[in-house]
Amino acid sequence: MSMEDRRQRLLALLDDENEIAPLLLDQPADIRWLTGLNSSNAVAILSPSHLVLATDNRYAAQARALDGNFELVIDSKVREAAFERFTELVQVAPEPVAQPEAVARARAIKDDDELVLIRQACEISVEGLTNLLPQIRIGLTEVELARMLELEMAKLGAEDRAFATIVAAGPNSAIPHHAPTSSKLLAGDLLKIDFGARVDGYNADCTRSFIVGAEPEDWQLELHAQVLSASEAAKRAVRPGLIGAELDAVARDYLLGQDVADQFLHGLGHGVGLDIHEYPFLIPNSVDVLEERSVFTIEPGLYVEGSGGIRIEDTCALIDGELVIFTDVDRSLKRVG
Amino acid sequence: MSMEDRRQRLLALLDDENEIAPLLLDQPADIRWLTGLNSSNAVAILSPSHLVLATDNRYAAQARALDGNFELVIDSKVREAAFERFTELVQVAPEPVAQPEAVARARAIKDDDELVLIRQACEISVEGLTNLLPQIRIGLTEVELARMLELEMAKLGAEDRAFATIVAAGPNSAIPHHAPTSSKLLAGDLLKIDFGARVDGYNADCTRSFIVGAEPEDWQLELHAQVLSASEAAKRAVRPGLIGAELDAVARDYLLGQDVADQFLHGLGHGVGLDIHEYPFLIPNSVDVLEERSVFTIEPGLYVEGSGGIRIEDTCALIDGELVIFTDVDRSLKRVG
Repeated sequence: MSMEDRRQRLLALLDDENEIAPLLLDQPADIRWLTGLNSSNAVAILSPSHLVLATDNRYAAQARALDGNFELVIDSKVREAAFERFTELVQVAPEPVAQPEAVARARAIKDDDELVLIRQACEISVEGLTNLLPQIRIGLTEVELARMLELEMAKLGAEDRAFATIVAAGPNSAIPHHAPTSSKLLAGDLLKIDFGARVDGYNADCTRSFIVGAEPEDWQLELHAQVLSASEAAKRAVRPGLIGAELDAVARDYLLGQDVADQFLHGLGHGVGLDIHEYPFLIPNSVDVLEERSVFTIEPGLYVEGSGGIRIEDTCALIDGELVIFTDVDRSLKRVG
Repeated sequence: MSMEDRRQRLLALLDDENEIAPLLLDQPADIRWLTGLNSSNAVAILSPSHLVLATDNRYAAQARALDGNFELVIDSKVREAAFERFTELVQVAPEPVAQPEAVARARAIKDDDELVLIRQACEISVEGLTNLLPQIRIGLTEVELARMLELEMAKLGAEDRAFATIVAAGPNSAIPHHAPTSSKLLAGDLLKIDFGARVDGYNADCTRSFIVGAEPEDWQLELHAQVLSASEAAKRAVRPGLIGAELDAVARDYLLGQDVADQFLHGLGHGVGLDIHEYPFLIPNSVDVLEERSVFTIEPGLYVEGSGGIRIEDTCALIDGELVIFTDVDRSLKRVG
């Protein structure tokens, strides 16, 4: 069972004989990953022999319904309650150590249950986008478009958005992380949509770029072709054992060869799971390793200040040594509106 | 000008002559309140003679467009850059002190600009809800309804939701902070909708309860009448100088008299502004004072586990000694769907 595998993976972080320095977890995503409990207020203490989970009364019913192999404590003071129960169990006052970094690294490797959920979130995302496209019209605001897409994903079963949808039109598309405004779509605008669905806590992350109500100009086509080629080069290079910085460099070197690397204003990608940004990071200087069953984005972008920008982003996984693209939908600079 | 008033209010926290222990601000909402800059990565240092604001290159254009009376530093290492510039200015290495608690208390008193924005967010919220009601139908999921309401608010000019909209139907309505699910509206369900728009960073917070596709049963009507009476009792009691715990007790004591206080599972209310939960807190044991120009929710609720719950929440302000309700829309147990 997945939860048991995850527990074993964390136990491998501890010394075998070490009963007095167990692992302390207090990050909601870490707790959810280890126990299945989705609580904003929980603490877990893990040793080779015991797992104590403490949360408050608001989450009692949910926690009791889990079939996890843990000792559950319901108390408003979760930290104190977890420590107290653990002390009772091991007969020694514990000195648990938080290793959030190590837990985050363990979470980078996804099990089957997690891959199913991320894939599902990605499928909802691309279908939601497909359903949105015919509704795009000149005059809609960036904010309206963002909410329309979130509604389309809801109709398909998304529990929520993975993050606040980015819709950026015209010059705004040159801002990598633009917050949608009340500015309206105009003919000729580049339109960048960065979005994702969330399913059972697991996120999708996808970006596509479009041209609004006009045929694209040459500079827009060229920008798009360069970003698409950078994305394809990176995807071709993916293999187990590659370092994050190496994969980033594949896209960056291609763009350098095109003399536009200075318009690539961010890293190539990041891991995706219960958090929208997690290991592995595919950025300059990253020493993170692309491992079997890791899930990550590949998202090169080029941004021309004052004019517009293009990003193409896919959520991908490394499965059986092969790159699998979960957001495999049209990447062309399609005309909308 | 508002920003200057805010600066003066913070300077009042410092010793007049104290140039070497200035105030350090690093919370995004605090920085936005003091300077107008909406940045996820900024640091400000304030003394009677100087205000240094540091942020990174992503926010440079926005920061330069502000007409705040501050020294702007653009640097990826915002903290170090702020300290360095401040040292240059005052010729002494500063030892700024963070007083987030004090800043949060200063933010509890709203100026005219803030009241306008919160009022606007509230108006968008109630109009969005009004536009949603005729669209509610049996068979829609809680999640769909949440996204539909967020879209309605977007059409009216909301930049985003203030928080993830809560839609809870049937037994789920008995969970105070239920996350919407794919469960469908059924006839006879109590339907609780807790939502708000955000305008220029300022939030609204409102809850209304409805009955789906049926006439309400007696227990539902009684629950609703008790919550409404608790809300009205609290509103009548509001006056400048009242303590948070005292106002909470007005509603709680009324529900105690009805023998249902054990179904009132949370505090009476909280301040609202750039954060959705801020000072003053209107909860048992709170010593926060209801001050002129404070903005807060009044939100009694009753929850019958397994059956359903009702909450009525308004965003209110204390202006010229009087209670002003910003979310003044029908509170009846209206039939929808």
